[in-house]
Amino acid sequence: MRIARFSIDGNVAFGAVEGDKPDELVVDIIKGSPYGDFELSGVKVPLSKVRLLAPVIGHKIVAFGRNYAGHAEELGNEVPDAPFAFFKPATSMIGSGDAIQYPPFSEELHHEAELAVVIGRMCREVPRERVKDVVFGYTCANDVTARDVQQREKQWARAKGFDTSCPLGPWVETELDPSDLTIQCTVNGRQRQLGRTSQMIHSIEDLVVNISEAMTLLPGDVILTGTPEGVGPLTVGDEVAVTIEGIGTLTNKVIKRG
Amino acid sequence: MRIARFSIDGNVAFGAVEGDKPDELVVDIIKGSPYGDFELSGVKVPLSKVRLLAPVIGHKIVAFGRNYAGHAEELGNEVPDAPFAFFKPATSMIGSGDAIQYPPFSEELHHEAELAVVIGRMCREVPRERVKDVVFGYTCANDVTARDVQQREKQWARAKGFDTSCPLGPWVETELDPSDLTIQCTVNGRQRQLGRTSQMIHSIEDLVVNISEAMTLLPGDVILTGTPEGVGPLTVGDEVAVTIEGIGTLTNKVIKRG
Repeated sequence: MRIARFSIDGNVAFGAVEGDKPDELVVDIIKGSPYGDFELSGVKVPLSKVRLLAPVIGHKIVAFGRNYAGHAEELGNEVPDAPFAFFKPATSMIGSGDAIQYPPFSEELHHEAELAVVIGRMCREVPRERVKDVVFGYTCANDVTARDVQQREKQWARAKGFDTSCPLGPWVETELDPSDLTIQCTVNGRQRQLGRTSQMIHSIEDLVVNISEAMTLLPGDVILTGTPEGVGPLTVGDEVAVTIEGIGTLTNKVIKRG
Repeated sequence: MRIARFSIDGNVAFGAVEGDKPDELVVDIIKGSPYGDFELSGVKVPLSKVRLLAPVIGHKIVAFGRNYAGHAEELGNEVPDAPFAFFKPATSMIGSGDAIQYPPFSEELHHEAELAVVIGRMCREVPRERVKDVVFGYTCANDVTARDVQQREKQWARAKGFDTSCPLGPWVETELDPSDLTIQCTVNGRQRQLGRTSQMIHSIEDLVVNISEAMTLLPGDVILTGTPEGVGPLTVGDEVAVTIEGIGTLTNKVIKRG
């Protein structure tokens, strides 16, 4: 099932996306919480009539660094033995179709296409064999990074946490084997990144075990699983798209912060 | 005014702490939001009858590293030219009287006493002269750190973000000049840290300008302003107390995670 979150006429709702043809998709509005008991209302709205939002009500976003060898190497970094994580704040989330606002304190924004794991249950110290039970689904993410700021500042709160630095969407796919999917990033239609999730150094199971050993995860929390090689600059006016096989495409324009 | 957040009989409320003698403090329950229009209900409960919670409903916690020269030097680090920030997640917050749970993945927890700034208004790109207008008040914080994990992992999500790693309290003092206050940490009654907020390298104004340049701050967001020298280990059974002049004392026992 594809679970979207959207606004229409000032109201915000979750809905199940139905249909196959891009122009004919509809959302069936959900009654209840998508993480708990819910039913489909049968009230269907054309997807073209809604504004997609980030598909989670986010508490935290945990992002893992250097989880594809090709990306670690392209930036001249060693591949770490163990996973390491940082946070992006909930205030950084936007949905597909929203604008990435180029912040005034950077001159070098980069795209980083990533598979995002959405947590469905409150959990801590999740054993490897139970990871599948706490995962709600998967979506596309762009871990937009102020590369110049990242290189200057030892910790990355500003470089990776500024407003609009976490596009997520277009929706959460709840039925998907994430182990070997193509992940692609284009800028203005030209391919920049192309990888497969099977190239992750640490698997999704590893990452959930690693972070949940330390902290409680909540429904709607998001785990970003690292980016394949090919990261590069974004400039004002660009349209950046992250496409993951079996999920869909997350598209965002880059504008100057107003 | 001292604004506490607490639970009593299963209900959670904000209240204004009244009285001078520690044994005779009462909380007058607040009607409305402490960040907006509110009034005191006149319903007063002895502080000894409530369980103090972290005094904010936290969205994000932004923490600045190495903002006292003595602390940077004691860990063999250079004093950075510019502030740098990391996040602690809302799931790490506890109140005064709650237990710090020693996590299974560390063998070296350290205390770090810090002045915490609580934001009162949604804001971004705050000019230096407006910082005072977006600050709601001040509280005591302990930026509990798994020092061994911090040294192993390039980014500090696990080392500084595990559950119970952010004691805050006992309440938020809204009328206070924070520029030159003593900040002290004791463990089992013995002094470990003693500094003055005037020793901060980057002032509170600097820090709010720096982080709000990048991201929107929300009412209840917390900014940790760095720790003075004297950080050191905590072991199971310890009682750690952070006292800041004009605010009060934040006390937490250390237990093994159950």
